[in-house]
Amino acid sequence: MTPPERVFETIGKNREEHVQELLEFLRIPSVSTLSENAGDIRKAAEWCLKRMQRAGLQASVLETRGHPVVLGERCPHPGRPTVLVYGHYDVQPPDPLDEWVTPPFSPSVKDGYVYARGATDDKGQLLTYLMAVNDILACQGEIPVNVKILVEGEEEIGSPHLEPFLEANRERLAADVVAVSDGSQLDADTPAITCGIRGMAYMQINVEGPRFDLHSGAFGGNVANPAQVLAWILAALKKRDGTVAVPGFYDEVVEPDAARRREMSELPFDEDGVKAYLGVEQLVGEEGYSPLERKGMRPTLDVNGIWGGFSGEGAKTVIPARAGAKVSMRLVPNQRSSVVARRFREFVEGMRFPGIRVSVQELAGAEPVLVPRDLPSVRAAVRAIEKGFGRPPVFIREGGSIPVVSQFKEILGLDTLLMGWGSPDDGAHSPNERFRLEDFHRGTCSVAAFLYELAS
Amino acid sequence: MTPPERVFETIGKNREEHVQELLEFLRIPSVSTLSENAGDIRKAAEWCLKRMQRAGLQASVLETRGHPVVLGERCPHPGRPTVLVYGHYDVQPPDPLDEWVTPPFSPSVKDGYVYARGATDDKGQLLTYLMAVNDILACQGEIPVNVKILVEGEEEIGSPHLEPFLEANRERLAADVVAVSDGSQLDADTPAITCGIRGMAYMQINVEGPRFDLHSGAFGGNVANPAQVLAWILAALKKRDGTVAVPGFYDEVVEPDAARRREMSELPFDEDGVKAYLGVEQLVGEEGYSPLERKGMRPTLDVNGIWGGFSGEGAKTVIPARAGAKVSMRLVPNQRSSVVARRFREFVEGMRFPGIRVSVQELAGAEPVLVPRDLPSVRAAVRAIEKGFGRPPVFIREGGSIPVVSQFKEILGLDTLLMGWGSPDDGAHSPNERFRLEDFHRGTCSVAAFLYELAS
Repeated sequence: MTPPERVFETIGKNREEHVQELLEFLRIPSVSTLSENAGDIRKAAEWCLKRMQRAGLQASVLETRGHPVVLGERCPHPGRPTVLVYGHYDVQPPDPLDEWVTPPFSPSVKDGYVYARGATDDKGQLLTYLMAVNDILACQGEIPVNVKILVEGEEEIGSPHLEPFLEANRERLAADVVAVSDGSQLDADTPAITCGIRGMAYMQINVEGPRFDLHSGAFGGNVANPAQVLAWILAALKKRDGTVAVPGFYDEVVEPDAARRREMSELPFDEDGVKAYLGVEQLVGEEGYSPLERKGMRPTLDVNGIWGGFSGEGAKTVIPARAGAKVSMRLVPNQRSSVVARRFREFVEGMRFPGIRVSVQELAGAEPVLVPRDLPSVRAAVRAIEKGFGRPPVFIREGGSIPVVSQFKEILGLDTLLMGWGSPDDGAHSPNERFRLEDFHRGTCSVAAFLYELAS
Repeated sequence: MTPPERVFETIGKNREEHVQELLEFLRIPSVSTLSENAGDIRKAAEWCLKRMQRAGLQASVLETRGHPVVLGERCPHPGRPTVLVYGHYDVQPPDPLDEWVTPPFSPSVKDGYVYARGATDDKGQLLTYLMAVNDILACQGEIPVNVKILVEGEEEIGSPHLEPFLEANRERLAADVVAVSDGSQLDADTPAITCGIRGMAYMQINVEGPRFDLHSGAFGGNVANPAQVLAWILAALKKRDGTVAVPGFYDEVVEPDAARRREMSELPFDEDGVKAYLGVEQLVGEEGYSPLERKGMRPTLDVNGIWGGFSGEGAKTVIPARAGAKVSMRLVPNQRSSVVARRFREFVEGMRFPGIRVSVQELAGAEPVLVPRDLPSVRAAVRAIEKGFGRPPVFIREGGSIPVVSQFKEILGLDTLLMGWGSPDDGAHSPNERFRLEDFHRGTCSVAAFLYELAS
């Protein structure tokens, strides 16, 4: 079904109003990982509830054992396809705070971008669905397919309570396909459909030594130093050639086939532009793979944080009582998060250091996913994105993880269509995260077009 | 000259008053490394000035390019020996704050100890000199030798401005010997004279990568991770057998001779007690050396702090823009701080990591020192400590560093007598630092006795 011209006109007319709504949503500091933000999490869920209701959806806040899920539904056409939209209202912590040009939860608009934590990940992208449904209903009286919108509040902490929620709500969530916009186009000029995302195993290493910080003169030479031991552990996790040294890490990894590698090599990639954006002299990774392959098809391991001892101004001569690190691994088909986490734990806890206690926690996990390209919904999305962006999308693989995508497949039997409206330089998870207002608009138009194309 | 019994009686009578003065001194948070405490540093210097004047010394606050020096003098006997006392009114930072049972700058007395930052290092030990002079003058009208008391405010940051101060004040500081009480007895039952202290080279390593924290999914596999690089660097500094791996580190180290090793092996050392105090299953250090040898005669390297990326609750998937560490090395004869610092810098900066900038700063340095035992002042100290503690001292080597001791030798031509009144379990530099009131009293008596013994 071709979307009526009036739908695009309405979205165009409401453009400024949509931006104001986004700013309002972005003002809520809904950081899911920090317990001090529990009230803001609740506020963001309530905001989604009210906005869904105002758009014309039947909506409710549904409790989990963690942060609540918000579910909006409008299913007026029993015989037509149903799309289950997934998004998240929670955001990453904003720190390091002092690197933000404007405060992370006081959104500011500048040079065609809105700057705020959550702008691109995922509040701006999620809102394209609410705005599209709202505007179609406003000008056409009804949407062309059935829509269910599921918004969770724990994506940034690995969606620990969504799986039981999906299990308990199979019937209610029944659909033909899942649609998610929580990623990027290939670049500012090239819209994309993501046909692969990496999985994740996120670990914390705790290293404990003496029961309090010690004078490094009085005890240096006689006491095992937890920060030194942590360094030995982290150094042993990754080789200097970029490969991961956890035994068995690559055992299940499927090498990309020649056809996929060729396809990927034909995608435009502005290496100089990326280096300039990141402020690095060179990209660094595994030998024998291109940057896009390293990002989409190869697993990796990164230290996300380290701590221990004195980090203030000047000199303090202590042996720290404890040290720790957060380490995440990105996974590709056919790795399994739980298997990789187990091998990591066995490796780290198996290194023995006299006078030191080492323990490993698994903080979050997600499975890698490949999406088939020959689905009717994928073809509908290709046509819709061409209408919204003025050019057809390419197929890419993303480096990030969306834990719930494999759960949709396993629990609900649904494939997920990944249409990222963001840009790789939006700075998701970084200071000064942003979302281009033009992408917000084109994304909204693409969502509206998609609902009509899906009805065909 | 034997100290008159009346001196000890006076010190005994004033015991409680001395404690009150110590508590007052400890309430000033004179942390030298933090610029926010500059006002408290000034306050501590003024407190010393007033207390010296009240004790009967001619005193003044003398400016340096850093924190001021306080100098008190009373030289009534042109023909008799002059002792130059050295101490410091500055203290280490109190963190980690949440591990203190009572606040670090609200001193509390419990079970015969005073608990506060600076209690043993060095306010309590420094005060023994002021109290002894005060009480001798009160009951005898005059002190038996000439005394100059130099108190600085930058010991905990490596005494960066004391050297020019000594250079500029050679005449005024002329003396026969320096006396310092800024260390420990061997244990609670065994007073000691320290005949060796280690030197130090304190370094900071800065590792910089991308210009802001990056999403570890979007960029993991393509960008060098500063926290990972830091781990590789730190791991390369020290071998798992406890030896330091900086090339050339041991080149100038003098192996302890058989006689000294034998003497040290005869000292009592309660390894089980130390392990229980520290809460570690075993002491860990270089093979082939005893704990006391590792502490006093062998150089070592410790990571004092590490930082980088996310250290909060839960999971944040970033590649940190930067990471860093503080690393200190303890040195023994004949290592030189500047030589070791240069080798460290060359080694660390010489490791090349693509896409990463590594830089090294030297934050503080101190030279190792050995004190001859056959000086008249050492013999006087042995007799004095026997009077103060009821038993003669043993000779030990300390693991800590007192930067100024080598400067006294080089600039003023003076040996330094190191008489520690503290205990190894006082927790200098640790949370819940403390000083035993009995040691405060016995130290004061020993100082008084020392001034008389020195007059012989």
